[in-house]
Amino acid sequence: MTKVVILGTGNVARHLFNALREPDHLNVIQVVGRNKKALSYFNRWSDTTSDFNLICEADIYIIAIADDAIHSIFDTIAIKNKFVVHTSGSVAIDALPRIHRRGVFYPLQTFSENREINFKNMPICIEAENKEDLKILHQLAASISDMVFEVSSEQRKSLHLAAVFVNNFTNHLYAIGNKICLENKIPFAILEPLIQETSRKIKTISPYEAQTGPAQRFDKGTIEKHITLLKNKKHRDIYSLLSQSIQEIYTKEREKS
Amino acid sequence: MTKVVILGTGNVARHLFNALREPDHLNVIQVVGRNKKALSYFNRWSDTTSDFNLICEADIYIIAIADDAIHSIFDTIAIKNKFVVHTSGSVAIDALPRIHRRGVFYPLQTFSENREINFKNMPICIEAENKEDLKILHQLAASISDMVFEVSSEQRKSLHLAAVFVNNFTNHLYAIGNKICLENKIPFAILEPLIQETSRKIKTISPYEAQTGPAQRFDKGTIEKHITLLKNKKHRDIYSLLSQSIQEIYTKEREKS
Repeated sequence: MTKVVILGTGNVARHLFNALREPDHLNVIQVVGRNKKALSYFNRWSDTTSDFNLICEADIYIIAIADDAIHSIFDTIAIKNKFVVHTSGSVAIDALPRIHRRGVFYPLQTFSENREINFKNMPICIEAENKEDLKILHQLAASISDMVFEVSSEQRKSLHLAAVFVNNFTNHLYAIGNKICLENKIPFAILEPLIQETSRKIKTISPYEAQTGPAQRFDKGTIEKHITLLKNKKHRDIYSLLSQSIQEIYTKEREKS
Repeated sequence: MTKVVILGTGNVARHLFNALREPDHLNVIQVVGRNKKALSYFNRWSDTTSDFNLICEADIYIIAIADDAIHSIFDTIAIKNKFVVHTSGSVAIDALPRIHRRGVFYPLQTFSENREINFKNMPICIEAENKEDLKILHQLAASISDMVFEVSSEQRKSLHLAAVFVNNFTNHLYAIGNKICLENKIPFAILEPLIQETSRKIKTISPYEAQTGPAQRFDKGTIEKHITLLKNKKHRDIYSLLSQSIQEIYTKEREKS
């Protein structure tokens, strides 16, 4: 039986807690956090405490708190020489104090409070300082997910950056699409199936092959008409820049043909 | 029984043909196109011809050819005073000759050769010059799709523009994510579940509510680190510009709090 303590009470902590309390060989023995109201969510299934001096003995301590609080939490918690992992995409393993065996357990997904998340298909990126700890993390991750990847701190930095492009920035393009629809009294729902198909496509073909549109086919006339239609200066700049960036990829191919 | 003739043999023509030949009250009596090899696909189920003088009598003629060929096709086809519709997102209804009853039948989706498309959930945007023709188009569209929208030529221009953002540009962000993964020896598959969840999210919450990430939380440190990591100049510009554009939305909210 692997005993787990979770530090943190936010979205990631909640989702992780719900996933980790399922397997029989895992036992989330305690959830620790300052926010008593948030702690009450976990009360039904686990011991909880807001007193950082009352942390239980466990095999793994999972820190699921805001990135910039990870460092300072160690000033307050009374544990020593433990196996401690954080869950952040953008924080290196050595942000954790050397006194502990250190690791990272980073579930790569966008967590929202009221959305059920299927952990089975959620990539978990793990990192540890030695083989034994990596094995422990691998077992922990594999017991809740079918997608476990070893990712170094260096790689994780880039992975987090790539995630900003495909998640945060993509969502902003949806927001721009939404705004254009609103301004023209078009229901945004018209675009919804296209959005789904665009993301589903890359399950089977690469983004390189999937690329279509005026920029990819060097349709200067349509590009110019589109830019004229845009009311927001930033949106015009985004249209131009993304079109140029697409054309940078397909220029060579065009020169060949 | 509504008799339909399709002009064109490309992706849109094929998908439309397969959808329209299903309902009992529709009859695609002919497919017309120059490319004999492409025509052979339709031979099994319908009459075909590459001779533009041999076009049959029909209730509706659907033009599914490249945007810039729509105008010139009327120099060669021997029909007069018919109900003629095109299928383009970016061409106005009056690009069709006045001699015909004119309309638009625009399926808003990204068509790939080897992907099955479910028309039931595909928005079809229709436009006609009078109520009777609009009714005909409505019936035609509703017989293959549950999402039929009346959209004017003016609105369609903006809709097409919005589609470029949520489809073409989003796919390019996937391509950038893919490139970052490749450069750092990370399998792109790690990002795939995040991509799916990002698009699924907006079925239930607006892009405004769904926005997360360093730009949305004004995390200057992470933004700067990310830009330094990017090797491609255009990608650095895209990161900056999209971050600024996101912050333009959330600045007001931030000032209030």
